[in-house]
Amino acid sequence: MPEVRIVLVGPKFEGNVGAVARSMANFDIDELYLVEPCELGDDAYRRAKHGADILDRAVKVGSIDEAVEGCFLVVGTSGITTKGDRNYTRMPIPVREFAQHVSGYSEKVALVFGREDIGLFQEELNRCDILITVPTSERYPVLNLSHAATLAMYEMFQAGNITRRAEPADRKEKDLMFSFFDELMDAIEYPEHRREDTSIMFRRMMGRSIPTKYEYNTIMGVFGDAFRIIKNGKKWE
Amino acid sequence: MPEVRIVLVGPKFEGNVGAVARSMANFDIDELYLVEPCELGDDAYRRAKHGADILDRAVKVGSIDEAVEGCFLVVGTSGITTKGDRNYTRMPIPVREFAQHVSGYSEKVALVFGREDIGLFQEELNRCDILITVPTSERYPVLNLSHAATLAMYEMFQAGNITRRAEPADRKEKDLMFSFFDELMDAIEYPEHRREDTSIMFRRMMGRSIPTKYEYNTIMGVFGDAFRIIKNGKKWE
Repeated sequence: MPEVRIVLVGPKFEGNVGAVARSMANFDIDELYLVEPCELGDDAYRRAKHGADILDRAVKVGSIDEAVEGCFLVVGTSGITTKGDRNYTRMPIPVREFAQHVSGYSEKVALVFGREDIGLFQEELNRCDILITVPTSERYPVLNLSHAATLAMYEMFQAGNITRRAEPADRKEKDLMFSFFDELMDAIEYPEHRREDTSIMFRRMMGRSIPTKYEYNTIMGVFGDAFRIIKNGKKWE
Repeated sequence: MPEVRIVLVGPKFEGNVGAVARSMANFDIDELYLVEPCELGDDAYRRAKHGADILDRAVKVGSIDEAVEGCFLVVGTSGITTKGDRNYTRMPIPVREFAQHVSGYSEKVALVFGREDIGLFQEELNRCDILITVPTSERYPVLNLSHAATLAMYEMFQAGNITRRAEPADRKEKDLMFSFFDELMDAIEYPEHRREDTSIMFRRMMGRSIPTKYEYNTIMGVFGDAFRIIKNGKKWE
């Protein structure tokens, strides 16, 4: 994942700036630049929560040029997707595609967000190397500023990380569970001609649910007991 | 894409409710249910923008049960990812994986979001068929309520144009299957104090695998036979 700098150009509501800072903390993003922002007071800090120190360190500048200094790629955001081909400077790519594209980068990328009401001016958009957009309803495409920034940061974070899950069961445990299910079918005299299909089906279902070791062992216990009771009339031999 | 209902349980800040309504409009989601919400005043409507009519139509109820009535799948959200395997009732899958999984559904899915400070209570989580989570920083995983909801809706919207699956089992079939599993535990004299946990675990595993009608019916047949043989000594009475 590249280093990410968030740039807010002319934000009017301090609450939005605070909410962006909080999301930055949520997605391990640290650098906030503000171009001619509103004043940041109680509301900003109340919304920022654990992102308060990001607000404290935010760099206030007078122009977009200053805000993106030192960045390798300047990425503009736009809620307006142009249908025609003509206005190529307004033709953005979807944020997910962008995030996946730059996930191998190690250099700094500036994500630039415009004003709540009128977004980025044409000359500011022209300053950007690339434009991205969040796909939305055609009827109401205009996202709240902090929502737009959060979605972009989330996509960057997703592209840079593979999610961790509890340890899944290993091959041996799984095979054991499937054999218990097969034995259960045997015990109940499940129709011969359907056993293979049902066995495969069960395996697929379990495959899709990606059980943990603990889940496998628990379910296996239930099947095992049922099997032993049917076969021997009791749980333990 | 399934029909989506957004359920907010005990929201404390009207601004968050308004912000969620706006995002709903952004992602073509219409149905909002509020369980014992705060009052909705100017701040909610100011934040809702074009989502104001969603706020107007929001259904206020007294419990999560009322809020999810008529929904095929009840999806809880949790910011807390358990490391160990044991607390399986708190083991969520990533929201993207979930959204892609259910993209072929045509039935209604309830996305349930908890209180700003303490989330969903354990008994509310137990009411859910599946838990999802938004991958975030380990250092500060707690998202703002409207940000969490926006990210989930965005993923549902994104997944909306992906491949279809075979028809999933409906609510009634699922409940029947779970009751067969419970009866099987009863038949094998499964330890009383572990039954509820194991029952919830099984429900979650099945929730994650999202079985088709055919799969449910087949598995139910195996459990049912095992249960009847243990209880009566034969498959058919």
